[in-house]
Formats: sequence, C-alpha cells, structure tokens
Amino acid sequence: MAGSTYGTLFRITTWGESHGPAVGVVIDGCPAGLALSEQDVQKYLDRRRPGQSRFTTKRKEGDTAEILSGVFEGKTTGTPISIVVRNEDQRSHDYGRLKNCYRPGHADYTFDVKYGFRDFRGGGRSSGRETIGRVAAGAVAAKLLKELGITFTAYTKSIGAICVPQQEYQFKDIMENALYMPNNTYAERASEYLDCCIKNQDSSGGVIECMIDGVPAGIGETVFQKLDASLAGAVMSIGAVKGVEIGDGFAAAKAAGSENNDAFFYEEGHICKRTNHSGGVLGGISDGSPIILRAAIKPTPSIGKEQETVTDAGENTILVITGRHDPVIVPRAVVVVEAMAALTILDLLMINMSARLESLRDFY
Amino acid sequence: MAGSTYGTLFRITTWGESHGPAVGVVIDGCPAGLALSEQDVQKYLDRRRPGQSRFTTKRKEGDTAEILSGVFEGKTTGTPISIVVRNEDQRSHDYGRLKNCYRPGHADYTFDVKYGFRDFRGGGRSSGRETIGRVAAGAVAAKLLKELGITFTAYTKSIGAICVPQQEYQFKDIMENALYMPNNTYAERASEYLDCCIKNQDSSGGVIECMIDGVPAGIGETVFQKLDASLAGAVMSIGAVKGVEIGDGFAAAKAAGSENNDAFFYEEGHICKRTNHSGGVLGGISDGSPIILRAAIKPTPSIGKEQETVTDAGENTILVITGRHDPVIVPRAVVVVEAMAALTILDLLMINMSARLESLRDFY
Amino acid sequence: MAGSTYGTLFRITTWGESHGPAVGVVIDGCPAGLALSEQDVQKYLDRRRPGQSRFTTKRKEGDTAEILSGVFEGKTTGTPISIVVRNEDQRSHDYGRLKNCYRPGHADYTFDVKYGFRDFRGGGRSSGRETIGRVAAGAVAAKLLKELGITFTAYTKSIGAICVPQQEYQFKDIMENALYMPNNTYAERASEYLDCCIKNQDSSGGVIECMIDGVPAGIGETVFQKLDASLAGAVMSIGAVKGVEIGDGFAAAKAAGSENNDAFFYEEGHICKRTNHSGGVLGGISDGSPIILRAAIKPTPSIGKEQETVTDAGENTILVITGRHDPVIVPRAVVVVEAMAALTILDLLMINMSARLESLRDFY
Amino acid sequence: MAGSTYGTLFRITTWGESHGPAVGVVIDGCPAGLALSEQDVQKYLDRRRPGQSRFTTKRKEGDTAEILSGVFEGKTTGTPISIVVRNEDQRSHDYGRLKNCYRPGHADYTFDVKYGFRDFRGGGRSSGRETIGRVAAGAVAAKLLKELGITFTAYTKSIGAICVPQQEYQFKDIMENALYMPNNTYAERASEYLDCCIKNQDSSGGVIECMIDGVPAGIGETVFQKLDASLAGAVMSIGAVKGVEIGDGFAAAKAAGSENNDAFFYEEGHICKRTNHSGGVLGGISDGSPIILRAAIKPTPSIGKEQETVTDAGENTILVITGRHDPVIVPRAVVVVEAMAALTILDLLMINMSARLESLRDFY
Repeated sequence: MAGSTYGTLFRITTWGESHGPAVGVVIDGCPAGLALSEQDVQKYLDRRRPGQSRFTTKRKEGDTAEILSGVFEGKTTGTPISIVVRNEDQRSHDYGRLKNCYRPGHADYTFDVKYGFRDFRGGGRSSGRETIGRVAAGAVAAKLLKELGITFTAYTKSIGAICVPQQEYQFKDIMENALYMPNNTYAERASEYLDCCIKNQDSSGGVIECMIDGVPAGIGETVFQKLDASLAGAVMSIGAVKGVEIGDGFAAAKAAGSENNDAFFYEEGHICKRTNHSGGVLGGISDGSPIILRAAIKPTPSIGKEQETVTDAGENTILVITGRHDPVIVPRAVVVVEAMAALTILDLLMINMSARLESLRDFY
Repeated sequence: MAGSTYGTLFRITTWGESHGPAVGVVIDGCPAGLALSEQDVQKYLDRRRPGQSRFTTKRKEGDTAEILSGVFEGKTTGTPISIVVRNEDQRSHDYGRLKNCYRPGHADYTFDVKYGFRDFRGGGRSSGRETIGRVAAGAVAAKLLKELGITFTAYTKSIGAICVPQQEYQFKDIMENALYMPNNTYAERASEYLDCCIKNQDSSGGVIECMIDGVPAGIGETVFQKLDASLAGAVMSIGAVKGVEIGDGFAAAKAAGSENNDAFFYEEGHICKRTNHSGGVLGGISDGSPIILRAAIKPTPSIGKEQETVTDAGENTILVITGRHDPVIVPRAVVVVEAMAALTILDLLMINMSARLESLRDFY
Repeated sequence: MAGSTYGTLFRITTWGESHGPAVGVVIDGCPAGLALSEQDVQKYLDRRRPGQSRFTTKRKEGDTAEILSGVFEGKTTGTPISIVVRNEDQRSHDYGRLKNCYRPGHADYTFDVKYGFRDFRGGGRSSGRETIGRVAAGAVAAKLLKELGITFTAYTKSIGAICVPQQEYQFKDIMENALYMPNNTYAERASEYLDCCIKNQDSSGGVIECMIDGVPAGIGETVFQKLDASLAGAVMSIGAVKGVEIGDGFAAAKAAGSENNDAFFYEEGHICKRTNHSGGVLGGISDGSPIILRAAIKPTPSIGKEQETVTDAGENTILVITGRHDPVIVPRAVVVVEAMAALTILDLLMINMSARLESLRDFY
Repeated sequence: MAGSTYGTLFRITTWGESHGPAVGVVIDGCPAGLALSEQDVQKYLDRRRPGQSRFTTKRKEGDTAEILSGVFEGKTTGTPISIVVRNEDQRSHDYGRLKNCYRPGHADYTFDVKYGFRDFRGGGRSSGRETIGRVAAGAVAAKLLKELGITFTAYTKSIGAICVPQQEYQFKDIMENALYMPNNTYAERASEYLDCCIKNQDSSGGVIECMIDGVPAGIGETVFQKLDASLAGAVMSIGAVKGVEIGDGFAAAKAAGSENNDAFFYEEGHICKRTNHSGGVLGGISDGSPIILRAAIKPTPSIGKEQETVTDAGENTILVITGRHDPVIVPRAVVVVEAMAALTILDLLMINMSARLESLRDFY
C-alpha cells in the first residue's frame, strides 16, 4: 500500500474520493521562499474542471483550492503545503444497479478483489477527481520551475483518428479551443467526431503531448531513477493512460540508427543537437534539448451502449449506464500530464544538486 | 542520486561499469526458503550474453554469476543476496578519439555534464553491462514467482518494419531463433534485414513484448504505485527503451469505448473477460487476465557511418566508430524486460499482502 | 526535505503549523476493513489537548478531528485517510520582541538558518501542535493493533528527580492523575515540584515509558530497519526528546553479561524468558516479551526567567518570555510516544508478512 | 524486509553473513570527484578488526577491502561504489550443541521465528561482521565530510562502571590504548576490570561517545527526518546498542529549563552558544555547535558461564559456550558508531541543499 505518495525530495501525497467530503494533497519538501497564493493553484485546477464544454461532465464543482499550511506572508516556508478542495456535489444518488455491477473498463472489480470492498459512488479513489491533488501540486511545481526558466506546453495531439501533425502546430490555438488542441481547425474536426460519439452513446481516446523547455542538461539519475523512466512511471500512473513515449517513441523502433541518432554541434558556446529524436533525454539524463513525451489515453469507459458484465454476486447481466458522460477525457487530462511532468522534473532537479563534490564544496 | 535501487519490499541495488573489475546486484527482501543456486541465475544471464549470434558483439564474457551471501544450505535465508559477475574483457584499449568525442545517441555528453566526468571506456555505468545485475535479480524473482504459478513469456515482436502479427505467434519458436522472435519465418526475414544494416554500417530498433500469466487479480497499489505505472517506470529505465505500452497501448487512443472495454462474464466460479484490451490491468490493479506490455527499443547508437559530433573541448568534428557493433540490441534486451517485469510483479505481490485487515488477522 | 512522512507500508504524512488555519495528517496504506470513526481519533487527541490541568497551557483548542477521506460506511477502504484539525486560537498576537529574538532551547534560530525564514507565531512547524497529526494517526494504528491483541501502556515515569520505581507501578492510577504517572502518590509529589517550578519561572523535564504487550516474536527487519532502531528514530523525532532506551538501556552498559542475558525456558508450548532486560528485542527482532522503551524529555524551553540571547539582526539582548507556559510537557507527550510506537509496530508487522516464501504460497 | 539499505541521497546497502564467502556494501549516490582508494577504506576497517588486543576475538581476518566499481582514475564517478571484503575464516567448525540451542542475548531465536530458519554458523547476518559494510561506507562518507571541514571524534566513554569524566578527556590518548578511551589511566583500570570479566567467564558493556565538529547550522529535516532522530535510528541499528542520547540526554530529563537552555550570544560575526546541553541540535536541526551523541552498548552475550536456555526442538537445557569470546565489544564498536554518524550527516547535508528556492536559483 502507501501508493499515494510521489517523489523523493519534492514529495506529494494525494488523498480523497469522488464522493467523500473533500480531496487534496500535501506537498512536502517545497523549497522555502516561493511566492504562492491560492490563485496560483486555482488557475491549474480550472483547466481540469468539469463543465467547461459540451464534452465534459455537467457535474458542477467549483473546485476551489484552500491552502491550509506551509505558506506564511505569501511565501512558502519549506514545511508541508496542505491543499484541500471540498467536493460540492455529494448529494445522495440512486446508484441502482451500478452499486452491484462491475462496470467494464473501470476499476470496480479490481478494487473489490483487492480491498474486499468498493466505493460504488462514482469510482471512489479511482475516480478522475483523484487527479485534483496532482494538479494542485503540479501548479506549485510549475510555478517554481518557471522561476528557473523551465516551461511546459501540453496539449491534445489527437482524438480518435484526428491527429495534429507537428508541422501544423499553432501553440496559440491551444487555449482557444475546448479540446486544448494546437490547431483550431483540427479541434473543430475532433469536435465533430465527438458529437458523433455522443450520438452513438460511445466514447473516444486520444494522445496528449507535453514539451518541456529550459531543462538544463544533466537532470536524471542513472539506472532506475532516469529522467525518462521517472516520467514514464509518473504519466502512466494517470488513470486512463495506456502508453507513454519519449521523443520518437515507438517510431524509433522502426528507424535506422543513422536516422535516429541526433548529431551534436557546437555553436556560440553551447553544445546543440541537429535533431531531437531522443526527446531531450540520453542515457536517462536530460541533454539540454526540449523534453518531449506523449501519453495514450484510452476512451472513457462509461458509455451509454449496452454492455455485458457481471454483478458482485457473480451473475451475468447487461449493463446500461444512464445519464451524461464525457465522450472523451483527453482534454481534461492535459493539465494532469503537465502536472506529473512538472513534479518529476522538479524532484530530479533537486536531487541533482548533490551530484558532484564540488557542488557540496561550493554550497557549504 | 541513489538511483541504482529498485523496489520497496523486494529491493535490488545494482552496481558496476562495463570496464571495471565486476558488475553485480544486491537483492534485499527476498523471502526465506526459496531453493536457489548459481545455476538458476546463470540460465538468465546466458540469455543476454554477448557472442551468441552474428548480430551480437564478439566481446567474450563468460558472465559467470557468483552468489556471495543470502543462501544457506541451498535456500534463501531472508537476508541480502549478493551476486557478482567479474568482467573478463578489461584489457586496455586504445580509445583514440572516442575518449574525447561525445558519441551521438550515447550518454557520453550527459554523464559529463552531470558528473563533471565520464568513463570513456565503453560507456561505464550507461553500458548495456549494467543490465547484468537486473537480469541476475530478475532470475531470482522469476524463480520465486514460478512457485506461485506466475510465468513470463517475452520475445521480440518486431525488428525494424518486420513485425510478427499476434495471430502468427508460435511461442515454441522463441528459443529456436537467435532473435527470440515468436515465429521462425519472421525471424529469418528480420535476419536478412539486419544483414542489410550491417552492410550499410547502420543499425535497427525493434519492439519487445512480454506476457505475464497467472498474476492474481488485486495486485498493484492505487494512484502512484499502480501496476501499470510501476511496469512502465521499470521498463523505461532500461537503456534504449523509448516507449512503453500496456494492453492495446497507443492503439487504444484511436479506439471507441465500445471496442476498448472488455466485457466481464462469469464462468465456473470465475469472473472472466471476453477480450483483453486492458492488458490485464484496470485502475492500476491486475484484473486476473494475462498482463501484456510492450517496449520500443531504439536502434543501437554505435554505427559505422560517419557522424557529425563535438569533442569535450567544444570542437565540431566527424566521428567514425570503428570495430564491430551489434546492429540491434533488441534480442539481448528481451530477458532484461522480462527481469524488470518479474521484479515489479513480485514486489507488488508482497506489498499487497497487507491490503486488508482480515489478512493481518489471519496471519497474526 | 520531505521529512514529514513516516513509514513504509503504513505511512503517514503530517502537516500544519501552530498558527495556520489547521493541522492534520494523511494516513496511507491503512488496511481495508477497520471500523473507524472520528470518535476513535478524538479519544487520543483529548489526551494531548491543552487546558486539562494547571500544568498545561490555557490555549483553548477543541482539537476536533474531521475525517475527510478513506472511510466508507464506517470502515476503512484501503485508500488514504485524511484527518484535519482546525486551529481555533489563531487571533493575532503582539509578538513584540519574540518576533526578532531567537529563544534559547527553541528552533527559532535553526529554522531561520535553514529556510532563510521563520514563522515567529509560536514555533510554526516546530510547535508541539505538529504532534496532533502523529497522535491522530497513532489512534488509527493503535485501534488496528488492538484487533490483533497488541496493546500499549504509556505513562510518565519521572518528572525532574521524582521517579516512580517499577515495583510501585499502579497502572490504574495513570488515568487518575493529570501527570499520567503510574502512582498517584508520586504524582502528587511531582505536582508539588512543578508548582515550585512555576513559582521560580522555571520548568522541568522527565521520562516517559511505554510498554507494548502482545507483539508476536519475529517483528523487525534486519540491519537498518530493526524494531529497536525504528522505535528509537520514531521516538527521538518527537520535539523535546533527547534520549531513548530499549529494555535496560544505559543500565545495560554497566551490567555484566551474566546479568543482562535473559535465560530462555520452555513452558506449555511456548518459549519464554526468565527476565526481560532486552526489552522484548533481540537482534532487532521482537522476542515475544513485552517491548519496553523510554524517552527522555527535556524541560520546556519557554521559561519566565531572564535569558541571554541574540536578535536576528545579530544583537546581544536579554529576553523575558511573558505569559503562562507549561512548566512541563512530559504528560502531554505520553500519548505522542505511544502514537509513534504504534505507528512503528504496525508498519513492521505489515512488512513482516512477506518474510517467508511459505507465507506467499499460503496467501496466493 | 529490505532493511539493509540506509540513506536517501547518500544510500548504502550492506550484505553478507559471518560465515559466507564475503561481506560488503554498495554505496549509491556518492558525489563525483572524491579522491578514493582502497587504503582510505582500509584505515577504518582496521579499527574494527579482530585480533588487536587481548580483549578481542582471535579470529584472524585480514578484512581487506576491494573496490569493484564507482572509482575511475582515483576518483569517485557518481555511480555506485561496490566494496567487498572476503571472509577468510570460513573453515567448517563443529558447532555441536550451538547448532540447536538458542543462545541467550543473541538473535538465534528471533531469526528462527521470523525466517523459519537460522544460520547457526556464528550468527549469520546478526553477527558483528555485518558492520564491516557500514564501516567501509562510513570511511567514504567521513573522507568526503573532511573535505567540507566536518570531523569526528569517537571513543569509549565507559566500560562497566569505569567512566571517563568529560573534564579528564585527553583526545590524544584515544589511539594509544586498545580500548579507545580518551584517557590512558582510565583505560588501564578498565583493562583490569575486563581481565576480571575474563576470569569470571563473564562480559561487560559500556558507553561510546561521538563528537562531530564543523557541521554547519541548518542540517536536518523537520518532523521525522530530524538530525537527532536520524542519528538515533542509525546508531540504535548497531547490534548491541540499547540506548542513545543527544547532548545531555537522560540528564536533561532531571534538569530545570534554566539549566538546560543554552544561551545565545553574538561574537565576531557569529551566533554562538554559552553551553551545549542541546548537543548541537535544536528542533531537529543542527545549531552550529558540536554534535554530541552517546550509545549504550550491552555486554557481549557470549559468555563462558553456564546458561539456562531451550533448544529449537523446545527442550529446556543448560548451555555452555566454549572457546574464547570478547569480554567486551565496545572498543570495536567505536568506529561503527562513527561510521553511522558520518553516513547520517552526509545524507542530511546533501538533502539540505534544496531547502531554499534561492539555492536552486543559484545552482541552475
């Protein structure tokens, strides 16, 4: 157990269920001296909040962050930052058959087997609301990283078969369409596809891409705590993620070495690369180029179509999930991927500070 | 730092460079009572040993495992198992220009930036020899898991564009061809492609797949220590891996929910699934189906072709790596993927034992 | 950093400052199925609450526990339990000179050096209120351990020079006197001594003892995670503790081996010991006897007497701390020692479940 | 399990049994650039080696350290340092009754209960030889710390009732007498007492003290990873330690606050303390004064006298341990205490580097 903690020096612990009183996070190890307000956190939470477009659940949650510790006179103190978000929409529902059915594609069955028990009220700890803690913590990490010149650009690369090619990226579009795609035209096409999904009582998956600029070379620990390994574990821990790539990813498996190797060259005092197939990571350590990662998100498992399943009493049955459900969770997961990337990068930046004896000598 | 340790309860620490006196691993937390001999470890090491086919390096290493602790009268004692493999091929080379050049696609540059220093003798800690410790430990984990009915089938799914489709898998072929492909005909085609690569002084990547049978439902911790997240981090930590998938992986991102959901049904006292798009993991917890994971391996970065690069003095130069190099590392990495999967599964199995109060009551 | 998390499988993360909005704890890894209510937690919190006798601060804090997650239909779910206690007494004070003075015996100076900053409002994170999270979590651990037959008896062994000898222990007295001493007569004498301290504007230290019954033999991991090492680290982490002993402790250093060894004998199917100098731990592993530990608590550093000190501007000055302060913190720390012991024992009990292959075989 | 690893950033993993082929340690996270040779390690190992005086076992062990990785061209590389010490004295003994008896004061019984098994050849993992790994790693940590101006002075403060008072410390004497006491006259008295113990087939305990100079203020993490808590856990993890004190320790429990508080004053640009009752730690963070810790060591449990015990078959019996045994282990444990202190201090120094945002800003 104890799987709700992430990070070594910058360490977060998330908690909370979808239908309990609140969800939240404790951030431990945040360096002292960072200007931080609830507004900084709120901006990130708003990006994953439901009810923002016709493709996201209508559940009305203000998702208001309250900081309960670790900030004094507007700055972080070095001690744990506790952030709580109250669940507003807790009214009692009639869960009906859902209470006893294992929904396909959900964690109902696996939680029941593991814990001898499950919270049938909307997924409990396996609900998407679990990510609120991650995003709140990610907001703090991202703010700190920005002060070090490290920035994140995350977006929806594809929804179903509609994929924005790299050469058509328009980063200014990302915040202009409800799907957070880096091209409004593609976003429109994806919207049409999603309308189709809704009509068919079906859902769609997609791919999220995250580019990280400004990470200095040298970040990541050898062997098991490599930068790419840490990012992969972090991103795969997000609910619906089924695949992770760094740089060229699976395409590299088909490439020749002469295509995939990035040539080095020297220019104006800096070592640079002609290409970035590596996605900014060599031997598990950042190489100074932008870090590029992608996450494959499966289609929302809650669909209106009839589905074959079993009850917890072991009877075969047909399940129909009623009510509105998001036909896609990709857009809301964009900020979650960004958050996990920020948490990972910051932790590894802090760990790297003691890599050399001369750094200790300079510091002490 | 301290990135060379993996696992919580079943925990390994690997050490050693390619050209130092030895490489090895300490396995801590192995349950007492497992019959274990050096031969058990050797069988796994032999699968990653060089010199087995015309596609692997000619470096002659017996790679003989010596167990220095933790086994008494043929059984594990519950205390750390230290395994050492001496490096036999340490003769002094003339590294020539390699000594001062950053090889494209290698970790030379990133190690130098991080540590202010690099071991120019063949990659040091970033060498493929680092995986010997993983494989030795994986052999122990796999042996223990076999006693619990959990087995692994790992193989080369594709090399370059030559990919064995699932419906043509012949698992008995895996050990019959030097590429560990589950179909000898495809293996032959891949061999021809690799001969081509050699002729072109180039190299190829590929995809490794691993199926894990017999894992009971309920394994994996919620949120950050999910089964799939743990596997992804573990597998991405292997040197040349650039992507990881669970179940349908990136294909799920293109699928509809109605296609991707696995229907449950009840049969002979068991809850089963009609399909296994999930790859055996739901909500980060095993669902009782076979676990399926894939790793994308980049092409070997050491190629004979001329490459543009820089020296550690900051001069642009052209690098030609002479000597023979593996045109592909995929076949030798198969057992490494299997080892990382075994280490992950065993650790999570042990952690899961205290998930319920009633388990503690039964135990104590 | 990241020092606010304790435990491996049963893992807690505490947060909160004395004068922030709240303090709390997240308990991760609590086994599913434990009946738990806020009342269970409240009973423990009440034992450390201020305002209970003339020797404890008058600060009025209800210290009411609110459980925000991890409990469903009255039982733990296996997911994180978040417990929050609002700080009621946050009104703005005139901290006057305290704001700029480093109080002797306090952490004002060390926090300032470390973080470049300190929370001058009553100690911030180094305040005794930090222990609320420990005690709330300890209440959960102790309740679970009780179901396994493991119980704790903690009490004030001595205050200043007034020490209750073992042969005069009356455990029923513990809850009858405000000092939690196991003998009301000694408690009265100690009270007189404390009145004297108050009159002298001075304070007193003391010793807390904790006996743990029912721990089965075999608990504790070898080498660094020994039962006694874990208890020592846990108990020494409580604010004012300056020494820890297991069994005979420092007295063992003066004893002869023939006195200190505990003879084994066999009786009615059990291996027993004639004496318990070891305090229930041999080789870092529980031996089935009661576990006995002691903690030395330093005198409250806040005293009314004039004290020489410096300001944060580096000026020598004389400090007079006005207002009422506890002349002793020992009685309020008794439940904190018990809590840390419970957290440690439970974590090690859970870890021990995978010590043998046959246990895994039985479980799976 | 997995109790053989210590530390967060500077992390060691020890392994090996007394009668296996070897013992050793892997040091992970050692900063790159430290000049290190086997001789640096040997100097420390020689201080705990047997056979140095008439009070230590005659077992002949050269205890020669071999470094197998992590050092290149005489300097640490930042990757794991593996150190192995072969056990020379492994000849087969006739263990006779020891094989089936649980020796009082030893871990025979507790290992057997825990693992269903024990290594009857001299204690296995619970043997004093386990500390070789700690000492080898401590040698590396101490060498690095010396470069930062941090030095250790460890010695035998008392043996049985013979205790060197602080005012009679002669630090130059420590290396002049076989007992490592800081006063040769007291050492002579203690030797006479030990001769007496030998004659009586009995043994003695004692107290070790360690002073650490040069630790800057600000080291130690709040709450659970405090400097004193970390030291206490580290030192209590040494085999025979039954008590740990920081600064005045248990004496503080009897003192008044006005006596125990250390007054601050300002002199020549530095904040100093008039006294050092705190032992250099306030609120779990170093205060810039020397750190002082003491460990109580129990008498050697192996004594020649007849002892009552049980066999592993559950029969009451009388045990007589034949052969020569150390009448005291205190002198040999001095360097072990020093090693554990060095490992702890270095790890916390490294962790502290990211306590402030401005440190990250300066570094990156």
